[in-house]
Amino acid sequence: MPAVPLPAGFVAHTGHAGLRPDGDDIAVFLSTRPCTSAGLFTRSRFSGPSVTLSRPRAVSGAARAVVVIAKNANVATGPQGFRDAEEVTALVARAVGIPVEEILIASTGVIGRPYPMDLLRAHLAGLPRARFDADAQQVARAMMTTDTVSKTAVQRAGPARVVGVAKGVGMIEPDMATMLAFVLTDAAADPATLAKLWERAVSDTFNCLSIDTDTSTSDTAVVLANGAAGPVSEAALAVALREVCLDLTLQLARDGEGATKLLTVTVRAAADEGQARRVAKAVVNSPLVKTAVHGADPNWGRVAMAIGKCQDDRDIDPERVVIRFGDLETYPDRPDEKGLASLAEIMAADHVEIEIELRTGSAESTVYGCDLSADYVRINADYTT
Amino acid sequence: MPAVPLPAGFVAHTGHAGLRPDGDDIAVFLSTRPCTSAGLFTRSRFSGPSVTLSRPRAVSGAARAVVVIAKNANVATGPQGFRDAEEVTALVARAVGIPVEEILIASTGVIGRPYPMDLLRAHLAGLPRARFDADAQQVARAMMTTDTVSKTAVQRAGPARVVGVAKGVGMIEPDMATMLAFVLTDAAADPATLAKLWERAVSDTFNCLSIDTDTSTSDTAVVLANGAAGPVSEAALAVALREVCLDLTLQLARDGEGATKLLTVTVRAAADEGQARRVAKAVVNSPLVKTAVHGADPNWGRVAMAIGKCQDDRDIDPERVVIRFGDLETYPDRPDEKGLASLAEIMAADHVEIEIELRTGSAESTVYGCDLSADYVRINADYTT
Repeated sequence: MPAVPLPAGFVAHTGHAGLRPDGDDIAVFLSTRPCTSAGLFTRSRFSGPSVTLSRPRAVSGAARAVVVIAKNANVATGPQGFRDAEEVTALVARAVGIPVEEILIASTGVIGRPYPMDLLRAHLAGLPRARFDADAQQVARAMMTTDTVSKTAVQRAGPARVVGVAKGVGMIEPDMATMLAFVLTDAAADPATLAKLWERAVSDTFNCLSIDTDTSTSDTAVVLANGAAGPVSEAALAVALREVCLDLTLQLARDGEGATKLLTVTVRAAADEGQARRVAKAVVNSPLVKTAVHGADPNWGRVAMAIGKCQDDRDIDPERVVIRFGDLETYPDRPDEKGLASLAEIMAADHVEIEIELRTGSAESTVYGCDLSADYVRINADYTT
Repeated sequence: MPAVPLPAGFVAHTGHAGLRPDGDDIAVFLSTRPCTSAGLFTRSRFSGPSVTLSRPRAVSGAARAVVVIAKNANVATGPQGFRDAEEVTALVARAVGIPVEEILIASTGVIGRPYPMDLLRAHLAGLPRARFDADAQQVARAMMTTDTVSKTAVQRAGPARVVGVAKGVGMIEPDMATMLAFVLTDAAADPATLAKLWERAVSDTFNCLSIDTDTSTSDTAVVLANGAAGPVSEAALAVALREVCLDLTLQLARDGEGATKLLTVTVRAAADEGQARRVAKAVVNSPLVKTAVHGADPNWGRVAMAIGKCQDDRDIDPERVVIRFGDLETYPDRPDEKGLASLAEIMAADHVEIEIELRTGSAESTVYGCDLSADYVRINADYTT
């Protein structure tokens, strides 16, 4: 993997604290100058101390450092879990000389186990002497749990760079944000503008991703902008943020647990964006659609079934709906034997695109997912054992 | 399988029309005397002609015969599909000498393929001379698609018998009814009472079942009461109907596609029944909970995650929630290493019971499902090919 340099004014440390047998499992990255921040977090009723602690700090608009811990979610760990998270950010604050309120924490892995605090304390004791020379690729790698590849994305916005890292391949149907995604930029942006651009970028990228309908307790999406590259047009920054988020979203979908294919579902001519997304999500989340895509089984009728699940959308009329796989219409113009053979070929590709026209209006939405394989079951049937 | 006689005044025919290579694939059953009926059907926006045609006939309260066709859903088949369904019920009407408005049709299997009308016409031409000597077991068998066992249930209500048959192992999260369920009784009940008792019985049995979150286009649950056994107390009939529906629901859950275990989730001390069912469904439908149950992986934290998905239930407080597997509390009293070993044993049983106390009120609900196995993927990755 080629190195992915951080934007100007950002540095990162990655290291092995011992949460996994081998490889980096802790990352700390920060802006060497004051910066602005925006963050979106899981709405889970069981969100953990990382989210509870980081949310107000990110939303304040002045966060400038993040510590990420892999293999342990520190969720459902009671009051001790909250004290542990506070201690970790305090140890990082002391080591890097930044006020603790400017330090965020993110953590994913097994739910319900306390942090191994002895290991974390021992590692963080060495942080003041540690080298902060990691690039974005190393940070992305240190964050991984069941991910099989690290995910980074880079865009330019005028003179500034926008660099994103993300992780997460299971327990993924983000509602406010995704598993873990961090975007760093040396563009300058005031907190209100940054919050607005971030919400817009996340809304139709990470929030349109579903690997398995299971919303994580730890979803966190944070952007830090330190202005080292000077002012940037809002439009250019908006485009760059969206492109970085979309790039990471596609990488997350392709690396879904056990996934062999990327599945995208676009709903057009919908009454409004809510309807478009509801129908698209019903299709991308249907285990029967996902298994058919996995097996390249030309069983297009399951898409009709999944659309039908949107029972409260009384304006959806089967006599007006059109369903396509790539360029091939499968409903109402049903494929014959030869058409089914073409459909099987389309479904055997490593990216399957389903397009639906509802003809209830003019809104549209695209969602991102993957197929469902026996490997997903295998990975998750013995995750902790 | 021992024979399961129909209630007095009901007869049935099963036969092989050729929709599957071997075995019965069509069933016709009817009351030999006038009877009352009640029916509940899928709310899918893509429901097929069987549902469209049967709904008003069942709801009229006077239906007395049903024709069931296996291996073809006759859904998403356009106007021709509707004409075909009408023709099938007309041919049955002529053969058995009952008005066509009293004949229901139900059909499950592949979506998007027209009926093989030549085969159906040929078989129904022989119906006037066919023997109507099938029992409930044979009817249940003729209805099966990917089911591995036939499902019947019997109860007494005073002098009357209540006999139910059902099928369906995939595309199962019924909203108004289940895949296909028919209950016959020789009790007497006026249509209004029957409709009321039926809705109550279905509500916390079939409507609390989810195998894979995919709501079928063909869900149909019909009860026929012909009064051959005379009047029965409403209370006795209500209990018998509920017990038959619950019995069939448990059989459907255990036979879920690829399932190796029955999974039941009970939520107690909830604010209202809606909340109890919402939380229970979130848990029973979570692919991560289902795969953990499959692998007997004592990863109880996934239940906390699934409860957390009910993001709009702002009154759910993780500090008040209790989670148990069988008798073993896993939250907030987290099991130690020895406890996790006991949990793995509990999860290795062929029936895993999860109990959740929300402590937001006093309502409760139980839902029924199964584990998620690699076989589910295998069965559905090449269903049509």
